Amino acid sequence: MNAFSRLEQIRIVLSHTSHPGNIGATARAMKTMGLGALYLVNPKHFPDPEADARASHASDILARAEVCTSIDAALQHAVLVAAITARPRELSLEAFDARQGAKELLSYVNQPVALLFGRENSGLTTEEVSKCQIVIHIPANPEYPSLNLASAVQVMAYELRMALFRDDIEESIVRGIPADFNDLESLYAHLQQLMITSDFLDPDKPKLLMQRIRRLFARARLEKEEIQILRGILTALGKRW
Amino acid sequence: MNAFSRLEQIRIVLSHTSHPGNIGATARAMKTMGLGALYLVNPKHFPDPEADARASHASDILARAEVCTSIDAALQHAVLVAAITARPRELSLEAFDARQGAKELLSYVNQPVALLFGRENSGLTTEEVSKCQIVIHIPANPEYPSLNLASAVQVMAYELRMALFRDDIEESIVRGIPADFNDLESLYAHLQQLMITSDFLDPDKPKLLMQRIRRLFARARLEKEEIQILRGILTALGKRW
Repeated sequence: MNAFSRLEQIRIVLSHTSHPGNIGATARAMKTMGLGALYLVNPKHFPDPEADARASHASDILARAEVCTSIDAALQHAVLVAAITARPRELSLEAFDARQGAKELLSYVNQPVALLFGRENSGLTTEEVSKCQIVIHIPANPEYPSLNLASAVQVMAYELRMALFRDDIEESIVRGIPADFNDLESLYAHLQQLMITSDFLDPDKPKLLMQRIRRLFARARLEKEEIQILRGILTALGKRW
Repeated sequence: MNAFSRLEQIRIVLSHTSHPGNIGATARAMKTMGLGALYLVNPKHFPDPEADARASHASDILARAEVCTSIDAALQHAVLVAAITARPRELSLEAFDARQGAKELLSYVNQPVALLFGRENSGLTTEEVSKCQIVIHIPANPEYPSLNLASAVQVMAYELRMALFRDDIEESIVRGIPADFNDLESLYAHLQQLMITSDFLDPDKPKLLMQRIRRLFARARLEKEEIQILRGILTALGKRW
């Protein structure tokens, strides 16, 4: 797989974008750096003439953008999902700056990875971040760290291109086949169901506890085989209930 | 001088910007990275509500932007001027990519440096580039290297911040006091006048030859003392005419 198609496979996922101009500007930012896969989760206005105008010569990317009705749909089979945030938050997923994060994303070869960007005004929700394995923050002025959405995409796309064409990427660590988004969500669902069944978890307020579990597994970067093992254990344990 | 005021001293110079939205977005891009000095050379519309809207919380930068009627006015006393272009051009000024260029600009401490950005559609003119000592290009997709103006500012401002706060900047090479923009222009004017007086240069078409001379001196990164020496020589030689 050559370098160009590696960039083409990186997904830029925009969640609940309000301003169609930002969608167009994002497409342009992506194309200038060689990216091509744009996913739009419940955009407020799309398609829209303002998106077309700001895309300039990147209308092909808008034309083939995937419009999704849920984050999960946009993240299908991604082996690594990065939450892009203004600053690393308390949540304590494994955190990288933009430069390190680009290298981390490119350490997965021939498998889809995704960068998840939140709403213009409020960023990513806690639930959205919980679907990610790592957090990437763009170093910025602490007094005003709020980059425009398309500008944040531009910086990340630029760092991805720089990482691929300029920097020496460290040889991929020898890994097993990584678990993908679907594997992980199945594991969490399986686990949550068992935790509720077993009265360990209050089904009326499962959130905090499930968040902690997600973070724990996110740091582990599970392999497919490990998921199978874990789910095998759960299945076995579940038989008692 | 601390790191913050170093970023504040870096001038972002926009030449003949057509869309006021790009001016506002530039101010925002600058502020997110800690830059503050914006110079606008003959903007088509400024001030403008669209600029205010896109600036978001960076209206302070717009409020103190310097509006100039010539490139020369915006470059007064700058010791290093970088032309930002989509790709290094034939002109063969010393060329850097965005990352190297940011380090080069920061190697001048406590002295103003400037980044010159051209028109949205056509970039910098040859004459504008000739006022610069170095060219910086942002690595991009060769099939579509045309970043939005404010996005290009965002990438450069990001690299300046990264260079200052993250990278180990190589110790400034021991240099004499660098010549500034005014020193250089005086030298070129002095030289051109003498070249014409001496019939070496056709006053009706001085451009090409003067371009070559500018490039030659640009590569040299002259010091103030060297300018004095050169002009001393010119003065001495000029007495014969």
